Amino acid sequence: MDLERMSDQPIAVFDSGLGGLTVLQTLRHQWPKENYIYLGDTARLPYGTKSADTIRNYLYQNVNYLKQYNPKAIIVACNSASSVLRSGEFSDVPVYGVIEPTIELAASLTNNQRIGVIGTRATITQKTYADKLIEKNPQLQVFQQSCPLFVPLVEEGLFEDPITNLIVYRYVHQLVQANIDTLILGCTHYPLLYKAIQKVTGSDIALVDPAVAIAQYLQSVLPLNSNILEKGSLHLLCTDTAHHFKMQADSILGIGEIGGIEKIDL
Amino acid sequence: MDLERMSDQPIAVFDSGLGGLTVLQTLRHQWPKENYIYLGDTARLPYGTKSADTIRNYLYQNVNYLKQYNPKAIIVACNSASSVLRSGEFSDVPVYGVIEPTIELAASLTNNQRIGVIGTRATITQKTYADKLIEKNPQLQVFQQSCPLFVPLVEEGLFEDPITNLIVYRYVHQLVQANIDTLILGCTHYPLLYKAIQKVTGSDIALVDPAVAIAQYLQSVLPLNSNILEKGSLHLLCTDTAHHFKMQADSILGIGEIGGIEKIDL
Repeated sequence: MDLERMSDQPIAVFDSGLGGLTVLQTLRHQWPKENYIYLGDTARLPYGTKSADTIRNYLYQNVNYLKQYNPKAIIVACNSASSVLRSGEFSDVPVYGVIEPTIELAASLTNNQRIGVIGTRATITQKTYADKLIEKNPQLQVFQQSCPLFVPLVEEGLFEDPITNLIVYRYVHQLVQANIDTLILGCTHYPLLYKAIQKVTGSDIALVDPAVAIAQYLQSVLPLNSNILEKGSLHLLCTDTAHHFKMQADSILGIGEIGGIEKIDL
Repeated sequence: MDLERMSDQPIAVFDSGLGGLTVLQTLRHQWPKENYIYLGDTARLPYGTKSADTIRNYLYQNVNYLKQYNPKAIIVACNSASSVLRSGEFSDVPVYGVIEPTIELAASLTNNQRIGVIGTRATITQKTYADKLIEKNPQLQVFQQSCPLFVPLVEEGLFEDPITNLIVYRYVHQLVQANIDTLILGCTHYPLLYKAIQKVTGSDIALVDPAVAIAQYLQSVLPLNSNILEKGSLHLLCTDTAHHFKMQADSILGIGEIGGIEKIDL
């Protein structure tokens, strides 16, 4: 592996919308000197209500598009798309999903072996996390809840709002009653509801953020830049022109961090 | 026009998801002997958060696909797609949107010339209804409100729920305070929230349902079957396989009305 050449290659991140920006933001905090490409597939958002076949089709189109930037890695910052990714299926570029690292982190955090998982309907119906957690450790008990209104709430920017609190309570209080000590936020949108979720779980339940999990994982598998002085570049792509996306990206990444957003067709 | 041949031709209806089923259901009640094709473009749902260019692209793909069934008319049962439809742009088949008939109906109902419009972000940002209402009657005052959480609530089947009531109040109470006497439900999903909306508006404000408006309009422009004895056929298509769609279609159209749903690719 030619490390010098590799240091210029960007890290590509994609999601159906802005949820993956939580992953991008965590990576940029940890490795600010890396170059980043972010693709928000906003024209086809949301993925979580769609079937596995449709989501696999999107996964392939997104990965193939991002390859033209010669990335050192592609991060699938979307649980629905990560759940249909098969290990090593893209031979010419490393493609990492958020699920395996999140499972590793959750399994290392639980003390009472009772783990909750919240996610989109697709993630929960396919038992993406549940099956892999139990495969890893058959002693674990997993409690699942789909939260299909969370993505719309986040896309509307209602991070802290009485309506959000009510909806979070509806979905999450049964998991608290099931005496879990660890809760996987099984969708990259959900960390933006961190405070609202913690109001319901209290501080004794560990919330597992996929962005933190994938950042820890990349540290162990990729040579990442720490010796370059200047800040890395950030290039945003989206499949729809919605002005709304720019405003929300500003609010998550910080005003002034984003020059523009390039509209692409997939 | 060969009326006998035409009587066998189906009426095609499409929407991004299940909202257009409110239009289909109204048409079937009124003309049960017609044959119907319904296309729910569930793989690309929702349209309302997407740009005009993206929605026009979808409109063309859907119309072109439905032409193979030789329909006597195609009904665009989606406000976002109707808003980008240009009059007479499909020369080989009549394509009718829901907006013009809805404006006609609303303008005929108001007494105080104050009309409210609720819709998706695309419908409201583009002032689809507002501009056309004022063009029709410059005396009208139009009050708009986008309700981006309504479609997710409907897609979740939360037609009557405390959460729905709270969200409806958030969006709609300002329109009531503006002293409107007529409210356009500017999205075909919204009639499924009729009861919840009426809790906020009270019974003095007329709610204008696009399904009722388009049914009245078709009566005046199409030769429709009333002389055939048997009930017409119903053929459902969707672009995603989601099991969820079938369950919801059952709840809107009635259990036993739908044989199966054919999955197509667009």
